[in-house]
Amino acid sequence: MTAPIITFTSDFGHQDWFVGVVHGVICEICPAARIVDLAHGIPPGDVTRAAFVLEAASPDFPPGTIHLAVVDPGVGTARRALAVRARGQLFVGPDNGLLEHALADPGRHVHALTTERYFRQPVSRTFHGRDVFAPAAAHLARGIAIEKLGPRVDDPVRLEGNPPAPRDGTLVGRVRYIDRFGNALTDLESGRIERAFPGVPEAALEVEVAGRRIAGISHSYGDARVGTIVAVMGSSGRLEIAQVGGDAASRLGLGEGDPVSVRVAG
Amino acid sequence: MTAPIITFTSDFGHQDWFVGVVHGVICEICPAARIVDLAHGIPPGDVTRAAFVLEAASPDFPPGTIHLAVVDPGVGTARRALAVRARGQLFVGPDNGLLEHALADPGRHVHALTTERYFRQPVSRTFHGRDVFAPAAAHLARGIAIEKLGPRVDDPVRLEGNPPAPRDGTLVGRVRYIDRFGNALTDLESGRIERAFPGVPEAALEVEVAGRRIAGISHSYGDARVGTIVAVMGSSGRLEIAQVGGDAASRLGLGEGDPVSVRVAG
Amino acid sequence: MTAPIITFTSDFGHQDWFVGVVHGVICEICPAARIVDLAHGIPPGDVTRAAFVLEAASPDFPPGTIHLAVVDPGVGTARRALAVRARGQLFVGPDNGLLEHALADPGRHVHALTTERYFRQPVSRTFHGRDVFAPAAAHLARGIAIEKLGPRVDDPVRLEGNPPAPRDGTLVGRVRYIDRFGNALTDLESGRIERAFPGVPEAALEVEVAGRRIAGISHSYGDARVGTIVAVMGSSGRLEIAQVGGDAASRLGLGEGDPVSVRVAG
Repeated sequence: MTAPIITFTSDFGHQDWFVGVVHGVICEICPAARIVDLAHGIPPGDVTRAAFVLEAASPDFPPGTIHLAVVDPGVGTARRALAVRARGQLFVGPDNGLLEHALADPGRHVHALTTERYFRQPVSRTFHGRDVFAPAAAHLARGIAIEKLGPRVDDPVRLEGNPPAPRDGTLVGRVRYIDRFGNALTDLESGRIERAFPGVPEAALEVEVAGRRIAGISHSYGDARVGTIVAVMGSSGRLEIAQVGGDAASRLGLGEGDPVSVRVAG
Repeated sequence: MTAPIITFTSDFGHQDWFVGVVHGVICEICPAARIVDLAHGIPPGDVTRAAFVLEAASPDFPPGTIHLAVVDPGVGTARRALAVRARGQLFVGPDNGLLEHALADPGRHVHALTTERYFRQPVSRTFHGRDVFAPAAAHLARGIAIEKLGPRVDDPVRLEGNPPAPRDGTLVGRVRYIDRFGNALTDLESGRIERAFPGVPEAALEVEVAGRRIAGISHSYGDARVGTIVAVMGSSGRLEIAQVGGDAASRLGLGEGDPVSVRVAG
Repeated sequence: MTAPIITFTSDFGHQDWFVGVVHGVICEICPAARIVDLAHGIPPGDVTRAAFVLEAASPDFPPGTIHLAVVDPGVGTARRALAVRARGQLFVGPDNGLLEHALADPGRHVHALTTERYFRQPVSRTFHGRDVFAPAAAHLARGIAIEKLGPRVDDPVRLEGNPPAPRDGTLVGRVRYIDRFGNALTDLESGRIERAFPGVPEAALEVEVAGRRIAGISHSYGDARVGTIVAVMGSSGRLEIAQVGGDAASRLGLGEGDPVSVRVAG
């Protein structure tokens, strides 16, 4: 067996020592684990943004990967702690919607983290990333079955979704995430676009965002001249609005939640 | 034996390649070591802040962990380089107070790093993190005894301390660190509070900071309504001033060094 | 054999999940690899700056190290992808000058990455770091020969260089990089200075930058009083302009490209 991979996403930032302490807890319980930091610059408490990171990044990891995610404004309250087996992987985090991508799998198995011998003792009042979630992820990496961590949960907290829907021949989605390069990632996944416009080539589609119409979906950032705004099918299988050699989000003033629509050009 | 853990704290930041080069040096000397980055965003030369990070984070790591710390404004001068065995762990860094937490252990063993065969050659004039400290940490991880690194030191440089002391029934401490969430960590450790107010329940204490009185010490950030300022026993065993769902330090204008006092409510 | 080291340099930043995904791809193909993040805060598309990071940092790593570098504004266009064996190490990145330090080795071997079975499938249009470059680095770490990755390339893209040259007894170079501490690293390497002024002791040289004359090249930042501007031979073997206990670049208003000249004091 190869070393299990544990990805780690949080709102801890890199200024303090919290990320490092979580690494230490995992190393102690499962020295063989490979820990991969996904993103720690999530704004404090921004569950929705962290949920999107898991949705976009987790499919890039191999089956059996364990995704540890801690954006946990309710730490110390009655909110539950969860482990989820879904999509061939494992997910560990608070029951606040953070694990939405896993929970959206109809074949999911959801368990509460209640078995105290898998906690780090004593359990603090304010840092369950260290004391509850990281130990659970590390024990899963050691091969402990998810069922041992606690009882089944049938009613996990879900994020409200507004999945993009076609209306009068137009598929309307939203900007979900602005990345470092100023690319605006949308919730318009490639499969969804294909189903909405069966048989229509990408070049025959028109994308509208921020009052601007973009002809066709490009094959890469670099197809057009520097400065051109393009719609491109991005690396996580979502439509992105990008500027060749530039920052589309700044240029167009895009923000998360802005509508993006696709229709047949004409 | 499991892989030895080397934590790494510095003021190198993440913009340049200095952190990576230190990782490379350690990997080359001790491929089995697990390197855990604790914090590299320490302001340049801020020895006191880095010393606090070591004090707060090192107890979360297992016995035998090696803590490498490099905040070293005196690099290239006559300041000594140290390795310290204390509190069941090992600490490596410059002799400028950075290792205060280790040095405060009466059972400490302190050695200067002078044995040149444990240096990386040639030793530069400006980057002892790479050439002196990282190799020492890696050789310790390989099992080299601290005594081999150089002679005993009896007079390491210490940080001036003002440990919180009770006065007229009030225990006065200070804000030591503002974390990413705006929580203000103090030097009021739980044991110190218990000794100052023996038998008094936490709920019967009153905390005063920035002219504001807080009734009782809470059990978590989430006990009270969003926006409430609370005093909570934090994850490193210190009293913290926090705002439920918010940033207490911004809200109250707190900074490091600000006084925080605890007394029996009445 | 010890674990192969793969360093990783990019303009991906740490806000998004792109760095983590690349780690995941490498872990899956070569679980034994040690991945060392060199720098991910390169400004988007700044090939020249990333090339300098590789030039400054790669000599600090052991023979056989694999340097993965992805600053790739031309992703998805016809620009080639390269692997280079040079200076006893391996380098992987786009054919846009990023690997200049490797390419400047007359003994280099340069190959295009074209063998599709060493790609991650399907290859996206926008993220060759994940789909082309990381897999190539990981396969090299597994011991795959560079020749298997694709055909030889005889005309890689090179960065324009203006190597410092002596003129009328003055050696004129430039600021290449401002580091976190405000030290200005130049392209004046120690060997070049020695060849330009054979037999002249460093203390007898004079450095001029931003209209200011600095007498002698110091042995460390700490030789002079706090606040003094010094010229020092830095840890990567280049002349640096520094301020003792301060930020020389801010103090003198230095920026990349500014001229720095060395002559015999007199």
